[in-house]
Order: sequence, then structure tokens, then C-alpha cells
Amino acid sequence: MPELRHDPIQKRWVIIASERGRRPDDFPRRSEHPPGGFCPFCEGNESKTPPEIIALRNGSGPNQPGWQVRVVPNKFPALRIEGNLDRRGVGIHDKMNGVGAHEVIIETPRHDLNLADAPVEQIQQVIWMYRERLVDLLRDLRLKYILIFRNYGAAAGASLEHPHTQIIATPVTPLALSQELISAKEHFLQKERCLFCDVLQQELESRERIVAATEEFVAVTPFASRFPFEIMLVPRHHHHSFAEISDDMIRHLAHILKEVLLRVKKCLNNPPYNFLIHTVPNVKVRPRRSDYWDTIESDFHWHIELMPRLTRIAGFEWGTGFYINPTAPEEAAKYLREVEL
Amino acid sequence: MPELRHDPIQKRWVIIASERGRRPDDFPRRSEHPPGGFCPFCEGNESKTPPEIIALRNGSGPNQPGWQVRVVPNKFPALRIEGNLDRRGVGIHDKMNGVGAHEVIIETPRHDLNLADAPVEQIQQVIWMYRERLVDLLRDLRLKYILIFRNYGAAAGASLEHPHTQIIATPVTPLALSQELISAKEHFLQKERCLFCDVLQQELESRERIVAATEEFVAVTPFASRFPFEIMLVPRHHHHSFAEISDDMIRHLAHILKEVLLRVKKCLNNPPYNFLIHTVPNVKVRPRRSDYWDTIESDFHWHIELMPRLTRIAGFEWGTGFYINPTAPEEAAKYLREVEL
Repeated sequence: MPELRHDPIQKRWVIIASERGRRPDDFPRRSEHPPGGFCPFCEGNESKTPPEIIALRNGSGPNQPGWQVRVVPNKFPALRIEGNLDRRGVGIHDKMNGVGAHEVIIETPRHDLNLADAPVEQIQQVIWMYRERLVDLLRDLRLKYILIFRNYGAAAGASLEHPHTQIIATPVTPLALSQELISAKEHFLQKERCLFCDVLQQELESRERIVAATEEFVAVTPFASRFPFEIMLVPRHHHHSFAEISDDMIRHLAHILKEVLLRVKKCLNNPPYNFLIHTVPNVKVRPRRSDYWDTIESDFHWHIELMPRLTRIAGFEWGTGFYINPTAPEEAAKYLREVEL
Repeated sequence: MPELRHDPIQKRWVIIASERGRRPDDFPRRSEHPPGGFCPFCEGNESKTPPEIIALRNGSGPNQPGWQVRVVPNKFPALRIEGNLDRRGVGIHDKMNGVGAHEVIIETPRHDLNLADAPVEQIQQVIWMYRERLVDLLRDLRLKYILIFRNYGAAAGASLEHPHTQIIATPVTPLALSQELISAKEHFLQKERCLFCDVLQQELESRERIVAATEEFVAVTPFASRFPFEIMLVPRHHHHSFAEISDDMIRHLAHILKEVLLRVKKCLNNPPYNFLIHTVPNVKVRPRRSDYWDTIESDFHWHIELMPRLTRIAGFEWGTGFYINPTAPEEAAKYLREVEL
């Protein structure tokens, strides 16, 4: 059983996935995916993944060919869905069992059709599936946070080339999310306004960091971007939860996501990247201070973070949480805007 | 002038080093240092670096050959020593000028003599120089934090192969350090004991995560290690500031640092790594709440963090600050202990 452990110095939870049991010789040095080779996510190889959780299909049976989007449990999960948390102390430390979920959304039967190049209708189906899995996982009251993220390219951590997104559901709220929730809450308590709405309004007034904008979404390079060409994609109007996105908004999101991914691809020569959806934690699981949750619909604003992986993160960044970004976000936005689509 | 910018959502400062001005085509894809080629850090090439700040020499003049350890300003500094901070707001955001220091400690005239293989006397000279530069930079009251860190290998962010350490002095205390300082302070206020001393005592009792131990230092794999084979090297007795390390302690540190680096090298096939010294901020620069500093000599405990770079940090980690570590620290410590030196 994987374990969650808490560091009393950094106040941070870590998953010790000992079932992945890496020994000293198990860390490969390869930097790219080997070309060719067998792919368990391709159509026809359905029996090579764990049995599917859900799929969008044209009438064919489960775990058969004939699907558009398919969701399976991760074969080497960082967290497991069975069991109890069994929280306990180990002297000064804390731990609990690694209960959670780790799923893979296979975005297309085609090995070589990446999200940036896929038709908008397909991107729409993928986003629809994000919502579907999020809503389902939120029913499990052991799970505090559900993170939907996409790694593109080996250098961004994708271990398989076939287009896919991952979902990890955790029994604690991750640190970066806690900080966002706290910042947003503090801002709301002071001003009775959403922090993200305020940031967005300022960006729309200055326009110098806008990458793309539609009637429902805005993509900007954040004022204090950690990474060159980092992008935040935000609903233009206030929405706290990705789980509540409407079908109509999904259509809008598919359009701007394709535009942004294409701009990144063309501007930066198809770079590796990560993107992640930041949404509210599982509001059905109330923390001890339950009044804390009372304003969450007004104070948090869901969004997507997209980070091209262009620079190596070195010792300074790891050791400090303090980043050096060699490209001003105003410059990055300008380059991205000027791409011909 | 580089700029420091503050993110109101993540409450995090970022250096926008626009003078490094990276355009879309400027991000190289290479993963290893090109073999051969000119090295500005080698003996005889002193004129190819900015003029030296200090060097350990056998009687030769500045910027001439005949040195053992040499310190120069970084040619492409992330922060600059000249000017005022000029703190200001930009609507909801904050910024200040990128005032600070960025230096390189060239550890040896020899291009191919890495720290793990160097004689203990040389490692001692390098550590002596760490202290020397730290003490000098702490005199500058604009500087809140001085970070000493070493990147080994291209995958760990080293842009030059010649053995070197970097120093970045910043006008704000970096986030990860703030969190450590707060955790240590909270623990001390509750218990009147040092958090690090408590953790260390527990590690010495259990012994399962000890990598190496001498009468003055202990190296352990932390209970909640973020990365496989991560190591924390801690003075066995309470010391808050690396700037106050004695010559005798430097000798002890050189011995255990060499041992730890050799164990890592042999166990993990000479992996890339980062190490960083965590010490107290510049205590001459008192923050607004000045009583906050009153117990810092008792509550903080300097230490070194060493992180072999064996896994890729993927979207999940970036997006959450929540890490998945595939090797239990007890296993890692065992492998490291069992290396034949």
C-alpha cells in the first residue's frame, strides 16, 4: 500500500509509492520516447490496460475497439482506491495510507493525433470526460482533491507518447492549492471580490499579457510567471468549480484550448508542456473549520495552468521555491499573439 | 535591470531576468554538455570571466593563474548588486528592482576533478570560501537571504561542466525558507526545543534512515523525502547559522560531504544532483515584527539538502507542490549505507 507522509519542516505531504519500488538501477537515463514499440493505449490493445472505467463509444462493448475517449485505472497507481486512511503518528511525523485514485484518460484511439492538432469536437469530448470523472470522484468522501493534468513530451514527464491526461485524487489538499485557496479567501474577506476576477480585470485593462480571449475565456501570461511562456487560462466570468462547467462552456473551452495549444506549438517548436486544472477541493468534505467553506463559491475561480518546459529547474528553484524566469511575460504574450494560425 | 515580481495568488516572488532575454528560439534542446570546447573557468582563462572577487592563491596576482579556489561574479547575473530596490505596486501586483548578487565559486583549476573525487583538503577550502562569501554578503543590508547551491550535471541545471558552486543573494526571503523558519518557530514557541534537533534525535534512535554519521554531522534520508535518495546533512549539535561555522567544523563537514557525495556517486552511477545550504536569513535586516527574530538562534538549525535528479518532475508535482517518490527513504538509506567506499 502506498503511504502519505507529512514533513513537519516544510509542512508538506509526500506520496511514498513503495509499490513502484525503484532501486538504484531502476532510474533510466533516456531523454526521449523510444520510437515505435508497443502502445497499450492504441485501439485494438484494450486488453493490455486494466478494465475501463468509462468510454465514449459508438455502440461497441466495454474494452473493445470502437471508442473515441477511454478512461482506465493507471496500471502503476501512485494511490489506490481500496482501504481506509488510517491516519497515525510516527513520533514527530505523520502518515496515512495512500488511498486515492489514479486514472488515465486516453484522448483518442490514434497514437499520433495530439490535442493541439485534434478537431475541436474531439477536444470537446475530452473535456466532457474530464468533467464526468471529476463529478464521479467527488462522490467519494475520502477524497479531498481531484487533480486533472496533462504531461506532453518525455521531458514533461509523459511516460507514454499516446495522447492522454491523468487524474490523481488525493486525501489531502495539495500545498499549492491550499495557498491559492487561502490567498483567494483573504482577498474576499477584505474586499468581497474574487481575487482572480480582480487579476483578470487588470489584465484585460492593460492587455499587454493577453494571449487569446473569447467571450467566455481569457488566456494570459501571469504578471509573475515562474516559467517562460507560462499561461493561465481563466473563465471570463466567475465560476468556482470545474465540476459545474456547462456543455456550452465546454464548447468554448475546447476552442480556446486548441488555439492556445497551437500558439504554443508553433511559437516554441512543439515544446514539452504540462497543464493542470485548478478547481475547488471536494466541498462535500468539510474541514474542521467548516465556516471556511462558506464563501468558497464566491472566493475561488477555477482556471488552467499551462507550463511549457523550456528551461531546466535547477538547484536554486528547488531549494527556495523562488523562480528565475528569463523571458518577461509581456514579451512571451507578444510572441504568442503574433503566431499565424 | 532584472525585476522581482510578486504573485498575489501563490504569494511567491519571481525574478524576471529580462536581461537574459530569452526569445522563442533561444531555448536549446540539448540534454548533455557538448564534449570538449572552451571553458572560461579553467586555469589560464582567468581573463574570460568578470574580474575575481576573491581567490585562494599561492602568491600570484588577481586574475592570474596559480589559484586553488576562485570567486567571480556570474557573467549573466539573475540579480545585480547596483541600485535601490524601489519597491512599488502595479495595481494588484507588487514589484521591486532585481537587486542582489549572483556569484560563482570555481572549486578547482582542474576541469575534470569533481567534488566527490577531490581531496578532503580541497573540499575544505571550498567550504571555507562558502563561509567567506556568506559573511561578506551578509554585510549588505539590502540582502535578506544568501543561498549557496551546487548544480552537478546538465540535467541538474549546470550550464558549465567545470566544478563550481553558485551564490544568489536575494532581497526577499524565499518561500521554502520562510516555511522552514515558520515551522521551526512554531515548534520552538510550543516546546522550547529546536524542531531539527527533535527530528534528528528521532532519526538517531530509529537509525533506519541514517546514511552516514560522524561526531559532528549526520546524513539522513528524510521521513517524507520528496525525491528518491534525497539526503539531509545536519550538524549533530544545534547551530543556527552557517556563517558561524568554525574552522574545525569545516574540516568535519568536508569529510562527511565527501563521503556522502561518494556514496551517491557509486550507488546511483554518478547521477546529476543539486545541493543547497539552508541557513538563517540576514538577521541584521529585521523584519517589521522584530520580536520574530528574537529566538532565531535557538529555533533554526542550518543544514544541507542534497537531491539526486533521478526522476522527471511532471505536471502533478508542479501543479500541486505534492510529490510522488517511488523509493521509500528507508530503502534509499540502506542502499547508500551499503555502498563500498
